[in-house]
Amino acid sequence: MIEDKNQQRTQLSDLGEFGLIEHLTKNFKVKQKSTIKSIGDDAAVLNFENKKVVVTTDLLVEGVHFDLSYMPLKHLGYKAIIVNLSDVYAMNAKATQVTVSIAVSNRFPLEALEDLYAGIEAAAKLYNIDVVGGDTTSSNKGLLISVTAIGEVESENEVYRSGAKPNDLLVVSGDLGGAYMGLQVLEREKEVYKVNPNSQPDLEPYNYIIERQLKPEARQDIIKLLVDLDVKPTSMIDISDGLSSEIIHICKQSKVGCDLYEEKIPLDPQVISTCEEFNIDSTTVALNGGEDYELLFTVSQKDFPKIKANPSLSIIGYIKEEKEGIHLITRANTKIPITAQGWKNFND
Amino acid sequence: MIEDKNQQRTQLSDLGEFGLIEHLTKNFKVKQKSTIKSIGDDAAVLNFENKKVVVTTDLLVEGVHFDLSYMPLKHLGYKAIIVNLSDVYAMNAKATQVTVSIAVSNRFPLEALEDLYAGIEAAAKLYNIDVVGGDTTSSNKGLLISVTAIGEVESENEVYRSGAKPNDLLVVSGDLGGAYMGLQVLEREKEVYKVNPNSQPDLEPYNYIIERQLKPEARQDIIKLLVDLDVKPTSMIDISDGLSSEIIHICKQSKVGCDLYEEKIPLDPQVISTCEEFNIDSTTVALNGGEDYELLFTVSQKDFPKIKANPSLSIIGYIKEEKEGIHLITRANTKIPITAQGWKNFND
Repeated sequence: MIEDKNQQRTQLSDLGEFGLIEHLTKNFKVKQKSTIKSIGDDAAVLNFENKKVVVTTDLLVEGVHFDLSYMPLKHLGYKAIIVNLSDVYAMNAKATQVTVSIAVSNRFPLEALEDLYAGIEAAAKLYNIDVVGGDTTSSNKGLLISVTAIGEVESENEVYRSGAKPNDLLVVSGDLGGAYMGLQVLEREKEVYKVNPNSQPDLEPYNYIIERQLKPEARQDIIKLLVDLDVKPTSMIDISDGLSSEIIHICKQSKVGCDLYEEKIPLDPQVISTCEEFNIDSTTVALNGGEDYELLFTVSQKDFPKIKANPSLSIIGYIKEEKEGIHLITRANTKIPITAQGWKNFND
Repeated sequence: MIEDKNQQRTQLSDLGEFGLIEHLTKNFKVKQKSTIKSIGDDAAVLNFENKKVVVTTDLLVEGVHFDLSYMPLKHLGYKAIIVNLSDVYAMNAKATQVTVSIAVSNRFPLEALEDLYAGIEAAAKLYNIDVVGGDTTSSNKGLLISVTAIGEVESENEVYRSGAKPNDLLVVSGDLGGAYMGLQVLEREKEVYKVNPNSQPDLEPYNYIIERQLKPEARQDIIKLLVDLDVKPTSMIDISDGLSSEIIHICKQSKVGCDLYEEKIPLDPQVISTCEEFNIDSTTVALNGGEDYELLFTVSQKDFPKIKANPSLSIIGYIKEEKEGIHLITRANTKIPITAQGWKNFND
């Protein structure tokens, strides 16, 4: 389908381990003042002066987290960085460095890894981070990417999942459910392609949701916006597993309850129309779909005037006392308990 | 063979992703002052005050880096930590935190992962480091472990590969070739076992070299020793790929040459006797074997009195001008150029 068919094929064994790392990272320029020594020694050396350091890591496995029949390798490299940066921003921190390790079977030629690293480099450039280390090894089967992201935050500015207080507003950036519906469209087209490899699908009506799936962005801009608005969230998390799962994380760790208003959940028109086409409830998709990489956070009521009119932010609910539980208030004004249905990857 | 046959089998799918991470790390206690927030949020939060931070990462893949037919999972967990800590010490830094991600197929029951994490915990305890993050996911085939290690170093105390100067002494800790010869014994016994599963191999004569392969240690003690001796190496690297490969790294990055004396290379008697038994040249094994995780470093001539009598350290050569090249001076006093033959894992 979308996968790039490389004409040239250079065997990985022609390079060896040292040649490969050197080759793939040779264009990477150091951008962060805190990067003292990047790739090329036993370890990278970083200097954060008096700032605190945040560290997060994620593993992406072929056949579990991505399908190369519709995920171009360049997009995959980009997304592997994004999903980690999103966790750094969710701490209210500035992302500064990543390490990238890959395990890859010999079925991939060098040119495929160059595509993957082109995506990594594109994300590093746009988000102004340095790739300071990594490991490259062979695998018996498929491709696996392990990324660790590092960020810095001024002391006392970090935001945990545990700080939400009763009466705080529950706020989400952007819109939800797009990545999941994009995946549904891609999976459908893959089935069509299997039956008729000559079919030319018209994916234009789904461009936004497909991009949400294949080339998501991390909300660095929201972290900057909150500084500009002089708002420090009381708690924050990124939405990787679906809104309901993340709300439960915040409520459990903050020992609070929550009312979430169905009518307030931000949905793109393309998500709504595609949900209608697939006959899926759009609220269910927003609650459980995952991979949107938006930020979910709580702010004190006193900050309401600062955020109420911002087009990037939606106030979707209120924090309650723990004993009041975690509920969805539907459009019909009924109250339904929210349970985690997030992505469970050992169920296959 | 050595692999533990667990009686109890709990399916990973019974727990789900969140339950699994929580379960595996529930005994891990925070030991480092710099760990502000460990597992449980979007990212760990660390505070190194004015110290520099070092970061390194390594990927271990089943069938490429380890063979579970003779590598017990507890040892594997231990070794996965050690190989990363070794890189931190090679920067002259103190290891403080690790993140551990695993991809695992459903053929492993929960009890197998508990063994793996018992090894990780044992290493974390002995080396006084915190496990502050990770990711757990399914794989289509086999087991893969990705570790990122973090350390701290007082400003100006870090040691790079690039600082060696002509006339410096070349020094190595411990002894070399043991891990490689241990692997040879284990591979031989595996073949014997395939033919006769009832054979009871006597591995006692090989206990040291088998331990070097299955349960290596990282030379934290050498970093402390160097502080006690008031010696700061001019360059340093850990020996993961074999002595010749590491000498070449130091020489290339320092723009120097080197004379290495064959007669000075430290070998354990068990390595010598096993090399004789396998009819392999012990110098070749020390030069190209790899996985010894000893430290190779250079010191100024003025530090000679401080290190000459130390039983943990061997002076094995001298740094020369770059134009003089990199050579092995054999016992017969002939001069042979040293070339990299280190571990290349794309050649299979």
